[in-house]
This record gives sequence, C-alpha cells and structure tokens, in this order.
Amino acid sequence: MTDLAALEARLQRLEDEAAIARLIASYGPLVDAGSAEAVAALWEPDGVYDVDELVMHGRDEIVAMVQSPNHRGWIADGCAHFVGPPVVTVTGDEALAVCHSLMIVNQDGQFVVRRATANHWQLRRTGDSWQVTVRTNRVLDGRAESPGLLASGFHTS
Amino acid sequence: MTDLAALEARLQRLEDEAAIARLIASYGPLVDAGSAEAVAALWEPDGVYDVDELVMHGRDEIVAMVQSPNHRGWIADGCAHFVGPPVVTVTGDEALAVCHSLMIVNQDGQFVVRRATANHWQLRRTGDSWQVTVRTNRVLDGRAESPGLLASGFHTS
Amino acid sequence: MTDLAALEARLQRLEDEAAIARLIASYGPLVDAGSAEAVAALWEPDGVYDVDELVMHGRDEIVAMVQSPNHRGWIADGCAHFVGPPVVTVTGDEALAVCHSLMIVNQDGQFVVRRATANHWQLRRTGDSWQVTVRTNRVLDGRAESPGLLASGFHTS
Repeated sequence: MTDLAALEARLQRLEDEAAIARLIASYGPLVDAGSAEAVAALWEPDGVYDVDELVMHGRDEIVAMVQSPNHRGWIADGCAHFVGPPVVTVTGDEALAVCHSLMIVNQDGQFVVRRATANHWQLRRTGDSWQVTVRTNRVLDGRAESPGLLASGFHTS
Repeated sequence: MTDLAALEARLQRLEDEAAIARLIASYGPLVDAGSAEAVAALWEPDGVYDVDELVMHGRDEIVAMVQSPNHRGWIADGCAHFVGPPVVTVTGDEALAVCHSLMIVNQDGQFVVRRATANHWQLRRTGDSWQVTVRTNRVLDGRAESPGLLASGFHTS
Repeated sequence: MTDLAALEARLQRLEDEAAIARLIASYGPLVDAGSAEAVAALWEPDGVYDVDELVMHGRDEIVAMVQSPNHRGWIADGCAHFVGPPVVTVTGDEALAVCHSLMIVNQDGQFVVRRATANHWQLRRTGDSWQVTVRTNRVLDGRAESPGLLASGFHTS
C-alpha cells in the first residue's frame, strides 16, 4: 500500500517541474512585454544571465537590458522571444533545464528568425518557489560550444 | 501530517493546469488538420476568438473560419500554427493563460514566418473540463497593444 | 471521501503525461547536440522513426542518422530542431502524442525555417519509463497526408 508521504513526494516533484516550466515559459511573454522588473524577478537577486554578447550579473543588470534602447527598439518594431518546452531535472533544491529559443523580429514588414539559441538553466528552490541562478544562452550558428551546452543540460550527477 | 484533502487539492491544481495546457497545445494541430468542429469545441458555445482582422463570436463562426477558402488555402499550400508553451494561472473555476504563437507558411517552396503573435486566453471550468471563453491574439509587429496583451496575461487579481 | 488508491491513479496519469512530454522535449536538444546514443535511447530497441525521406528501423539506424555526414553538417553550420508542446493521450501502457516541429538552420549567416513538420508519436510503457515505438513525421508543405497525420494524433479508441 502506498502511503501518504510517498504520494506527497511524487506530487511535490511534479509541482516542482511545473513551477520551473512555468518560470521558463514566462520569460518570453514578459521580456516582449517590456516588463523589466518581472523578468529580473525570475532570477535570484545575484543571478547571472550569460548570453553570447553580454553577461548580466544581478537583477539590476537584467532590468537595464530590458529597458535598454536596444531592447525597446525590438519591441517597438515587433519581436517574439519564443522559448520552447524545457526538459527539467530536479535534484533536491537544485534544478537544471535545457531548451531552445527563437528570437523572431519584424523587419521591413516581414518576420525573420534573428537567432536560434541553446538555453541552459540552473535554478534553485527559494522558500516555496524557484529562481534562476545561472541562465546560459549560446546561439546555434555553428559555434562548437552551443551543441555542447545542449548536451550539458542533461547531466545531473 | 498532510491530509488527503490537502493533497487532492494540490493534485487538482496540477490537473487543471495540465488540462488547459493540453487544450492550448491542441489548437495548432487541429487547425492545421482542418478539424473545424474540434477546433470550435475548444471554446464555450458562445466563446469569442478575437484576432487582429476578425472577431468570431460562437462556435459556428470559428467553424466557418476553419472551413473558409482562405484557411483551406493555407492548408493546401502547407502551414503550421505553432503555439508555444503557455503560462497558466488558475483561480477557482476561471483561468488565464498567455503564450506566443507563430504562423509558418509554405510559399513558393520555402517556409516563412508569416506572423508572430501574442496570445491571451481566458478559460472557464465546465463540468470536469475547461473551455475558452475569450482568446485574444495580436500580432507582434510593433503595434502597442501586443506587448500590453502579453503583460495582461499575468494579472489575476 | 477520495481514497488513496484513486489519488494515486490520478497522480500516475500526470506522471505518465509529464514523462512523455519530457521525452518529446528531449529530442531536439539531444539531436542538435549530436548525442546519437541518447537520441536512439528515446525509442524502443526496435522502434521506428519514419520521416519523409527516410524510415529508420531500430536504434542502430537512428544512431547512424545522427552520426551521418548530413546531420553533422547541419550541426556544424548551426541548427535547431524545435519541437512544440505535445498533446499526449495515455491509454494504459500505450500513448499517443501529436505536435509540430520546426527545423531552423543557419545558412549564409541567416536563420531560415527549412521545414515545418507534423509529428505523430506512438509510445509504450517499458518498466517504469516510456519509449517511442513509432514516430512519424510529415512535412507541412501541402501534401495531403500531413494534415491527416495531425488529425490522427487525437484518435485513441
């Protein structure tokens, strides 16, 4: 007979995975809405967002990216940060996730794929929620580190 | 000690979120299959589907859109309504969801992104399932209401 | 009063659906990482992967596809197999899933959508995990079988 504690542990694992998938799915709509504070709040206060051209340390630098003239320009022209469904692996209070993202932009009245990117997420449980500690993005343009980053999203031990 | 009723409430919340994510993931494959009745059945009988060019009221108008020469033409040429993973927020018997979608079409032997769109979903529990009451789509081509629509998908109170 | 066995059955269904969604979400990152053995392990030992140009029977042929000069070339130039969120239907120890996928490739310094594809997945429970028995992909370029394949992903009885 399965006991209540065992059931709760299984339920908790699903809740953790769902919370992390929800966090990751929130990034695109929030960043395309220009909701700078809400984007930054997905990270721990001193979390890191490491993209090819830029490494942001802490929420203030993430807020600054979303509020930058560059990012505002994407929104003003039309853009979609389309983040795919992640593979989430929870280990206690830490988690790892991996997925693709596309940046679609409106240029001269046409939508084009500006970037296809490998996304590697490290997360940590904080109270009863989850936050990003380090998100690493590398564009899938043939550079060798991008396939390697995807592969590393499945290593957990 | 966690009691059974508390566990069931947590399970029910995950089931609700999964049912809504499934409904939303169904839209693209069904509409690209031309399954007009099944698409319309995702909505309440008098549900609303509000896209930029067209507001459909009730299932008959949704069926008519899927069966229109225009939509049949997209299918005949090749098309994918690619809907991203949603952020779902359930509040009792109501729910809100937000995501992106892409409309990819085959033109002259090449696939192009015809539209990248902000999707805002309002849903209601009906018996033991969920249906759309209002779905609002706005193309992310720089019009100001589209980022606003994404932002509003996170407000629940 | 809900009893423990009924709760466990509901939980098990969510776990099954989550495991299958995770398997499907794993395909893209693994194949773009060139992780041939891990890709093949998503299938049963004699599973089938039926794409438009090629039918692979068994894991060895799937490994060979990932290790082929052709596939290595996509990775070397930059590519994303972007698989959308699936609609999963579990019936006992069998499951069906349907979704879209996009193949995005980097060509001459630009990302283009090479293919938008209908994905139909048949899966089977193996011990306490799930594996693909048959995955069928058909490009959404106007050929009649592709919309039909999407429609058939919702039939379960």
